[in-house]
Amino acid sequence: MSSENTPLEIVNDSVSKKMGLTAETNGVHQHTTSKVSTAFERWLIQKLLKSIGDPQLAVELWDGQIIRRHDNEMHRIRITKRSSLWKIILSPDFEFAERYVKGEIQIENSLTELLEILFQAWRDRESDSKFEKLLTRLSKRSRSLTAARDNVHQHYDLGNDFYRLWLDEQMLYTCAYFESPEASLEEAQIAKMDYICRKLCLRPGDRVIEAGCGWGALAMHMARHYGVSVIAYNISPEQLSFARSQARRTGLSQKVSFIEDDWRNIRGDCDAFVSVGMLEHVGPENYQKFGQIIRDSLTPHGRGLIHSIGVNWQRPLDRWTACKIFPGAQPPSLKQAMELFEPNELNVFDIENLQSHYALTLRHWLDRFEQSAETVRQMFDEEFVRMWRFYLSSSIAVFQTGWLQLYQILFAPPTSHSLPSTRNHIYK
Amino acid sequence: MSSENTPLEIVNDSVSKKMGLTAETNGVHQHTTSKVSTAFERWLIQKLLKSIGDPQLAVELWDGQIIRRHDNEMHRIRITKRSSLWKIILSPDFEFAERYVKGEIQIENSLTELLEILFQAWRDRESDSKFEKLLTRLSKRSRSLTAARDNVHQHYDLGNDFYRLWLDEQMLYTCAYFESPEASLEEAQIAKMDYICRKLCLRPGDRVIEAGCGWGALAMHMARHYGVSVIAYNISPEQLSFARSQARRTGLSQKVSFIEDDWRNIRGDCDAFVSVGMLEHVGPENYQKFGQIIRDSLTPHGRGLIHSIGVNWQRPLDRWTACKIFPGAQPPSLKQAMELFEPNELNVFDIENLQSHYALTLRHWLDRFEQSAETVRQMFDEEFVRMWRFYLSSSIAVFQTGWLQLYQILFAPPTSHSLPSTRNHIYK
Repeated sequence: MSSENTPLEIVNDSVSKKMGLTAETNGVHQHTTSKVSTAFERWLIQKLLKSIGDPQLAVELWDGQIIRRHDNEMHRIRITKRSSLWKIILSPDFEFAERYVKGEIQIENSLTELLEILFQAWRDRESDSKFEKLLTRLSKRSRSLTAARDNVHQHYDLGNDFYRLWLDEQMLYTCAYFESPEASLEEAQIAKMDYICRKLCLRPGDRVIEAGCGWGALAMHMARHYGVSVIAYNISPEQLSFARSQARRTGLSQKVSFIEDDWRNIRGDCDAFVSVGMLEHVGPENYQKFGQIIRDSLTPHGRGLIHSIGVNWQRPLDRWTACKIFPGAQPPSLKQAMELFEPNELNVFDIENLQSHYALTLRHWLDRFEQSAETVRQMFDEEFVRMWRFYLSSSIAVFQTGWLQLYQILFAPPTSHSLPSTRNHIYK
Repeated sequence: MSSENTPLEIVNDSVSKKMGLTAETNGVHQHTTSKVSTAFERWLIQKLLKSIGDPQLAVELWDGQIIRRHDNEMHRIRITKRSSLWKIILSPDFEFAERYVKGEIQIENSLTELLEILFQAWRDRESDSKFEKLLTRLSKRSRSLTAARDNVHQHYDLGNDFYRLWLDEQMLYTCAYFESPEASLEEAQIAKMDYICRKLCLRPGDRVIEAGCGWGALAMHMARHYGVSVIAYNISPEQLSFARSQARRTGLSQKVSFIEDDWRNIRGDCDAFVSVGMLEHVGPENYQKFGQIIRDSLTPHGRGLIHSIGVNWQRPLDRWTACKIFPGAQPPSLKQAMELFEPNELNVFDIENLQSHYALTLRHWLDRFEQSAETVRQMFDEEFVRMWRFYLSSSIAVFQTGWLQLYQILFAPPTSHSLPSTRNHIYK
C-alpha cells in the first residue's frame, strides 16, 4: 500500500506584504521586509530541528536557501513564506499542521513518511531546555498567532456521503483487526466485529447494549451472526437514520433498536455491554459515572468490552487535532481508563493493544481518501482536502511510532463467571 | 479435586477461666462469668451475620445454642469459647482467622467452601452503617486484642523441605496455567512457563533478566527450551543455593547466572525482562523506580512481562494475611500497576487476568498440603498446620469469588516492534 504524493508546487512568495509579525517579535530580526532569509532565521531552524531530535530532513526556504543537518536527507520541507516560518517557530505543534493545510508548506514524497520521521525523532530526542525556554518565551508573546476555532468542520457532521468515499462498505469508523496485513479493509472490519463478539462470548438470546454505535454495523452484525438482541445508542441523527434504514432493509429491525440518546441516559439490563470508539469523547472526568452506568446495566453474569484510542501516558491530544479535528476529545491512558472499573468493582479480564492495526486501518482510509480527493475537493475545498490528509497521515504516524494506542478492555462484575478461563476460544 | 476436611473436634470449654476480656468491654455484657451465652451476644451474632451479607451458615456457641438466619444452613461454625466470640466481634477480619488457627473455631466440612460462602456474601452485601459504626467504636476500645506480629514464621524462610511437600517438582510458587482444568499441577506449571515465553516471543540468543526468580525453574526453562541466556535475581540464599545446584546438575550453569541481589541493583542490557510473583513485594511507592530500572535494562527492541497478584481496587491486604502470612506485601490494582509503565514511557500490549487459574493452582497446593499435614505438624506444630490451611483455603476463596486477580502484563518501549501484531502465535 503506498501513501499519497503531494507534488511540490510553486507558490508566490508574498512575504513582503505580511508585516504584521514584525512588531510582535519586537526587533529581534531586522530584515523581515527583505525576501532574503536572515542568518538568525536559519540559526533558529537549525536549533528547532535539533530540539525535535534531529530528524533526517532538510528545510528549504522561500529564497531557495536550504538548511541541512545530515548528509543524507530523507525528506525536504519547503516553507514558502517568511510569515509561515515564524508561525511554526512560535507554535510548532499547531502551526506545522495549519501551514500545511493552508498550502504554505510543501512536501516532496509521502507526508506520512515525513511525519513518521518527525514523531520518531521527537520520541527519541534529548531535550534542549535552554532553547525550549526561548521558544516558550517567544510563543507567549505571540498567542494571537494561534488560530481560533474558526472554520472547524464538526467531525461527525460531515455527512454520510463524505465518509462513504473512504470508509468500508459497512461504514465502520474505528480500528479494524487484520488477521494478516494483506486482508482487505472490508475483511478486517468484519474480523474486528467477530473478534469483539468472540471476546464477549456472545450467546444466542443475549441482550446487548451498545454505547455509541456509529452507523450501526456492529449492532447489526451481532444480531445477524450471534443471535442476540441489541439496544444501540447514538446522538447523531444522520448516522441513526442510516442505521435504521439498513436494519429495515436487512430485516433486523426486530432484533436491533437504535436509540437517539446520550450514554448518560442508558438504562436497562444486559448480558453484554459494548462501546467501540466512544470513550475518547466521554472525558476522564466522567469515567467513574460511565462505569457506574455500565455496572448498573450488567446482569450478575454480564460482561463488557470497551474499545478506545489511548495514550501511553496522561496528556492532552496535540493542539491542532484537539482544535481542528476532534474538539473535546481526550483519549485516556490505561491508568485513567481504570477509573471506569476500579471504583465500580468491575474486574478487568483482558486488555489488548491493537496499535499496529490502527496504523494499517488508517493507511487504507488514506489510500481511499486520496483516490477520492477530487470529489472531496468539490464537496468542500482544497484546504479541507489538505486538512484531512494531514489528519490521516499524522494519525498513521502516531500509531506507527507508538504515541497512540488502541485498547480493547474486557471486563465483568466479580459475580460473573461467563468468561472462559483461557483465551483459546478467541483464536480457534 | 476435593478440598480438605476438618473434622469437628470436641474441645474443652475453658471460657470461665478467661476473664481478661470482661474489663475491656466495660460492662456491656454482665454475664461473661457464666457459661451460658447472653441474649445480647446472640443478638450481636445475628447483626454481625446480617452485616456481612447474611451468608448461609449457622453459628453454634459454646453452650450449644445455635444462631440461624436461614432454614437451610450450608455450613456451621462452632465457637468454643466466649472470649473467642468477643475477639471476633471486635475485629472480625483478623480474629476469625486467628481463632481458627488457635483451634477455638471449628468447622464441619470444607473450610474453603465456607470461606467462599463468606466472601461471596460479603461481596454482595448491603452495608448496615449503623451497626458497622457500633463495631468500629467497640473495636477501638479493644485494640489490645489484636495480635501483635508474634510468632510470624517469615514466609520465605520456611525452608525448601517445607515447600517441597506441596509444590510441584520444579518448585514454582506462583499461579500455574491450566490449558484444561484436568491438567496436573506439574503440567500446568510447565504450561505457565511456556505461556510466558510465547508471550515474550523469546528467540534463541536473547538475553533475559529475571527479577525474583524463586527456585530458578523459569530461568532454567527459558534457557533449556528457548535458547536464551538468563541473569536471574533473588534475595533468598536458600532458594539460590537450590537453583544453582539444579543448574549445575542439568548443565545450564553457562546459560543461567543466579545473582543474590535486590531488584534495585539490577543493571545490564536485555532483550526481555520478566518478573513472576515479585511485584507483590515491591510496594506501590516503588513502582515508578522499578519501571525505570526495567526501562533502562531493555534494549530498544526489548519487551517485558510482569506476573503479579492484583486487587480489583486499591486497598491493603486483609490484616491477618498482611500480618501473619505476607508481612509487607501489597498487591496492586491495575491503576497502581500502571505507575511502572506510564511515567517510564513503556507501552502496555497485553494484560490477562488469570484469576481462576490461581484458584485452581491453590486447590492443588491445598490438596498436597493436606496429604502432608502430619509431616508439617512434626516440622512445626498444629497451629502452623491450621494457619497454613486457613491461608491456602482463604486464598482459593478470594480468587474464586473475584476479590483477588492474577495479572500478566506484557509491555515494550515504543521503539520496539518485536511483538507480533496478533496473539495468534501464543495459541497455535
